[in-house]
Amino acid sequence: MSRIAYVNGQYVNLRDAAVNVEDRGYQFADGIYEVCEIIGGKMVDFPRHIARMQRSLRELRIAEAMPLTSLKVVMQEVIRRNRINYGIVYLQISRGVAHRDHGFPSPDVKPSVVVTAKSLNFAKNQATAAKGVKVITTAENRWPRVDIKTVGLLPNVLARQEARDKGAYEAWYVDADGFVTEGASCNAWIVTKDGKVVTRTAVSGILAGITRAVLIEVLASMQLKLEERNFTPAEAYDAAEAFVSSASQIVMPVINIDGKPIGDGKPGGIATRLRQEFHKFAAIS
Amino acid sequence: MSRIAYVNGQYVNLRDAAVNVEDRGYQFADGIYEVCEIIGGKMVDFPRHIARMQRSLRELRIAEAMPLTSLKVVMQEVIRRNRINYGIVYLQISRGVAHRDHGFPSPDVKPSVVVTAKSLNFAKNQATAAKGVKVITTAENRWPRVDIKTVGLLPNVLARQEARDKGAYEAWYVDADGFVTEGASCNAWIVTKDGKVVTRTAVSGILAGITRAVLIEVLASMQLKLEERNFTPAEAYDAAEAFVSSASQIVMPVINIDGKPIGDGKPGGIATRLRQEFHKFAAIS
Repeated sequence: MSRIAYVNGQYVNLRDAAVNVEDRGYQFADGIYEVCEIIGGKMVDFPRHIARMQRSLRELRIAEAMPLTSLKVVMQEVIRRNRINYGIVYLQISRGVAHRDHGFPSPDVKPSVVVTAKSLNFAKNQATAAKGVKVITTAENRWPRVDIKTVGLLPNVLARQEARDKGAYEAWYVDADGFVTEGASCNAWIVTKDGKVVTRTAVSGILAGITRAVLIEVLASMQLKLEERNFTPAEAYDAAEAFVSSASQIVMPVINIDGKPIGDGKPGGIATRLRQEFHKFAAIS
Repeated sequence: MSRIAYVNGQYVNLRDAAVNVEDRGYQFADGIYEVCEIIGGKMVDFPRHIARMQRSLRELRIAEAMPLTSLKVVMQEVIRRNRINYGIVYLQISRGVAHRDHGFPSPDVKPSVVVTAKSLNFAKNQATAAKGVKVITTAENRWPRVDIKTVGLLPNVLARQEARDKGAYEAWYVDADGFVTEGASCNAWIVTKDGKVVTRTAVSGILAGITRAVLIEVLASMQLKLEERNFTPAEAYDAAEAFVSSASQIVMPVINIDGKPIGDGKPGGIATRLRQEFHKFAAIS
């Protein structure tokens, strides 16, 4: 079956889904995106993703392209047309098409809206989580506004490729002060030997992950102790567990950082439980 | 006349010139660009622009999409089909189209190549230069690899818009050490009261501008003294002259920085002479 995408008002085959070469998303990375998990054909935590999307647009002064109810209908329709049961839906909004000029175009220019969706292999993801993944650390080199979910992802691309070149699954950024910020496309977590779950505050240096926010609620319900604070790679090497969170991975146990096994080198018990419990807390719509 | 663009092997009307929504330039800012001035229908400093393009591609490990001789023919053809006498030609190369995944796609994926061109109004640009422009300063917030000419230009977009919102033409970035790096789309220069022309070294913090490199040759031929070193906004406020350089503006005199008039508040003599002399030194092909 060919995949269907939504592009600026039309549902088209993905291979024909195109935007103008003067779309500001293409020439300037002048756009934002969101990724929602799909479970049973429905979106996970849609309201939170949409609220973050609205914030990203506000921060960049990009207009909202369509009413939120319409946007939801479009995203649901893309999921339906692609017959996705388990997978992800991807939403990208750019400032629109205008002759190339760095400054914002006329307010008449309408933002571009693209929605795609794809199935993920649940059994394969479960198998990966059961095995755990390796991460490397790399120097933070992104702009400070990583709190905005922009498509300016080239540093993330290079970090992910560096990880892959080193036989790892993901790269964790380490800032100039020596603290882990986040992964190339996920938030980073460790569990201390006395059972505290640690992740950086969302004040600076990271994107406020939706999965991260839900996990904080899951932790509370499981009466696990959360510490939102900075941690170093050295503390991570010595942790009982480590894991990453994102909409497409939920909780993915990390078993090795920079070649050093974490804990006993197997997925940790807390990470595994969080992965199991997560969807009881996520809003499905 | 409708404008013609080249997109991946075809010449098409600009309004129909499109790339797939999964082009990595659109989803990840995973691509680079060059802008060449066109004079008398010919490209200015093409060999230097192409050498810099090759370097950008190498740094990002993007393959060269076509032989350089073919690329030159395509760029010349876009200029010819658009009947450009004076203007600019824009080249963008991305890592190509692949299902969304941060890491590099299969080596089979071919880079995307887009070329557009447009006429500029020579008389209008001369009038702007005769009047001079205002700049503001803003905090540097780009990633450290600004030596690569990537399409990840969102910080530049926001800086330029900030300048426009404040009634200025351009923004100059100021780094954490208090030194000017460069403008949102140009290199920054001052002339000291004792006639030395100052611009930051191209070692870090800036793109090695082609126009900048040619200007250094022009300075030598005019027996003007060059100092490649850092300067602060305070030194710039107190300078005899200031100007910016880029392929599309060549030399544009700056008459005001952060609301402070530079020199006598009129375009400086050295900036004006450099603008006049520049094309005697540029290679036209």
